[in-house]
Amino acid sequence: MPDVAAYAIDSPTGHYARTTITRRDPGPTEVFFDIHYAGICHSDIHTARGEWGPINYPFVGGHEIAGIVSRVGSEVTKFKVGDRVGVGCFVDSCGECEMCRQGEEQFCTAGPGEGAVWTYNGIGRDGLPTAGGYSTGITVEQDYLMRVPDSVSLEHAAPLMCAGITTYSPLKRWGAGPGKRVGIVGMGGLGHMGVQFAAALGAETIVFGRTLSKRDDGLKLGASDYVSTQDRDAMKALRGTFDLIVTTVSDGTDLDGLLGLLKAHGVLVNVGLPEKPSSLRLGVLTGQAKVLAGSNIGGIAETQEMLDFCAEHGLAPIVEIIPADGIDEAYDNVVASKVRYRYVIDASTI
Amino acid sequence: MPDVAAYAIDSPTGHYARTTITRRDPGPTEVFFDIHYAGICHSDIHTARGEWGPINYPFVGGHEIAGIVSRVGSEVTKFKVGDRVGVGCFVDSCGECEMCRQGEEQFCTAGPGEGAVWTYNGIGRDGLPTAGGYSTGITVEQDYLMRVPDSVSLEHAAPLMCAGITTYSPLKRWGAGPGKRVGIVGMGGLGHMGVQFAAALGAETIVFGRTLSKRDDGLKLGASDYVSTQDRDAMKALRGTFDLIVTTVSDGTDLDGLLGLLKAHGVLVNVGLPEKPSSLRLGVLTGQAKVLAGSNIGGIAETQEMLDFCAEHGLAPIVEIIPADGIDEAYDNVVASKVRYRYVIDASTI
Repeated sequence: MPDVAAYAIDSPTGHYARTTITRRDPGPTEVFFDIHYAGICHSDIHTARGEWGPINYPFVGGHEIAGIVSRVGSEVTKFKVGDRVGVGCFVDSCGECEMCRQGEEQFCTAGPGEGAVWTYNGIGRDGLPTAGGYSTGITVEQDYLMRVPDSVSLEHAAPLMCAGITTYSPLKRWGAGPGKRVGIVGMGGLGHMGVQFAAALGAETIVFGRTLSKRDDGLKLGASDYVSTQDRDAMKALRGTFDLIVTTVSDGTDLDGLLGLLKAHGVLVNVGLPEKPSSLRLGVLTGQAKVLAGSNIGGIAETQEMLDFCAEHGLAPIVEIIPADGIDEAYDNVVASKVRYRYVIDASTI
Repeated sequence: MPDVAAYAIDSPTGHYARTTITRRDPGPTEVFFDIHYAGICHSDIHTARGEWGPINYPFVGGHEIAGIVSRVGSEVTKFKVGDRVGVGCFVDSCGECEMCRQGEEQFCTAGPGEGAVWTYNGIGRDGLPTAGGYSTGITVEQDYLMRVPDSVSLEHAAPLMCAGITTYSPLKRWGAGPGKRVGIVGMGGLGHMGVQFAAALGAETIVFGRTLSKRDDGLKLGASDYVSTQDRDAMKALRGTFDLIVTTVSDGTDLDGLLGLLKAHGVLVNVGLPEKPSSLRLGVLTGQAKVLAGSNIGGIAETQEMLDFCAEHGLAPIVEIIPADGIDEAYDNVVASKVRYRYVIDASTI
């Protein structure tokens, strides 16, 4: 049983500190890999601080993980020692239910945890609580690992495992491509990947931010325009012109306003998790057959496709590498929207 | 200029009475047809009573119209005198905008009325207010007429022009078919067509009503089950099992509850127009990538396809034929949900 170093938090209001956790020996079809980098996702913060409900402490966050394989089980066929790999928000599922068969393992209905097993705050197939990527190594079933393409660095690969797939999946599913006008609302960890994907898929891409402070970055990443949602005239001029909008903000989304930007049959996809119920005029959907959809990461095959797409088009997140003892400060900066655009923990500092 | 008899209402609180209105002579590509039947849609009532905003009186309702061609313009190629035809909610559009080119003329963005020209409460290409089907004849551009299949009677064809296409279109667009479980919420004029379409498309179809009073009819029309939305245990047992739900009720829809019935990636389509904003937990959409969509009638080609589908599968609305002097009473009965399932005016009584 390999012991690995990790950073854990011991209460909703506590601080992260170095500790040691035990990973299981890789089973016949499992892989153990040395973690090199782990991204910090806002979900880590909500979970660690108990904002999404009570959890067990000590808690180790991190579901944007990249590293290099150092041990493989006897029947592992997909990976070998030295391979560059990544793992995202889940590490297991039943593999047999309707959703798993469709490659949508994140929506597994029959897995070991009554669904997919989440990378942290879940119960693994060994019956033990799962612990995330703020650590130096992890054991994962080979079917739940992605291969990181040669041209994608490991520090860039890490955030793609959640921020990347979260924005790539709805853009693909809802037809972002040539001839389409696509909006990305919010220019944060998710949004700054969304704009890259939408533009690389061939869509005319417009970013919506509260202010124009990140405008230059948005244009550099492929947007043809960057509009402040506070600019009423600009918003009005864009009404009825979008095929697809992906909103990555999780508070105070003006649904009626965003839906007004869509053409008939246009689609607004929300990937955030607002705490309060939203108000919605159903007539806005009905009148022009508009669509309001949710999206939640993506399956293993699609996550691999997204990584390959990044390699093909030279896309990468903009990251700030931090040492493990900077996690608390990083959390506060994420909450204050000060990060540009993703903190990634250098696991060699754990 | 043909004068035709019509029933018109002269104020939001007025009564329908016999009058005479003038239709234009059919232009080169237009058709005049003798109206045999006109259905009563709840939208007629909302419009006539000013509930959707002020309108011009006298007002002639009716956008579910079927009859027989009696005059054709010199360049009409699609229809001849004696043909059985129908017209629905709109009678014209630009024919050139993106939506028209896609066969979604109801969402025309550039038509004579700044969009499609509605069958009533619009302005026609002659610059005059349009008047609906509670009359004995109407002039329509040939491209906006449907052909009624031989095996579909005219009194059945009429309600299909709105109630039919309103439910057929979302079922087709969102994949109702073999292997899918489909819910129809509300067993009224729309819902009783929805259940027939869903079942004929091969889906396992379950109707949701407030009570079970229409259960026998629902099962006869093809439902495999009929569930009261007040039955908490039954509702709970169905959670997470639907691929698609079409809701036809326009007041007090419990969106979170209906969304809970869907599988991951499931779709809830609303075709009603509630007056008040609805409350929605976006997390319910996000968590399992669910979809909330609107739908609004359908284009000309799809409406024709729906009529042909009815002929092929022997589907028809259940109608109650009424004389024109019964419109007021019929309106009250529709509002009181007493109609089973569609009132159709016999135009020979006008």
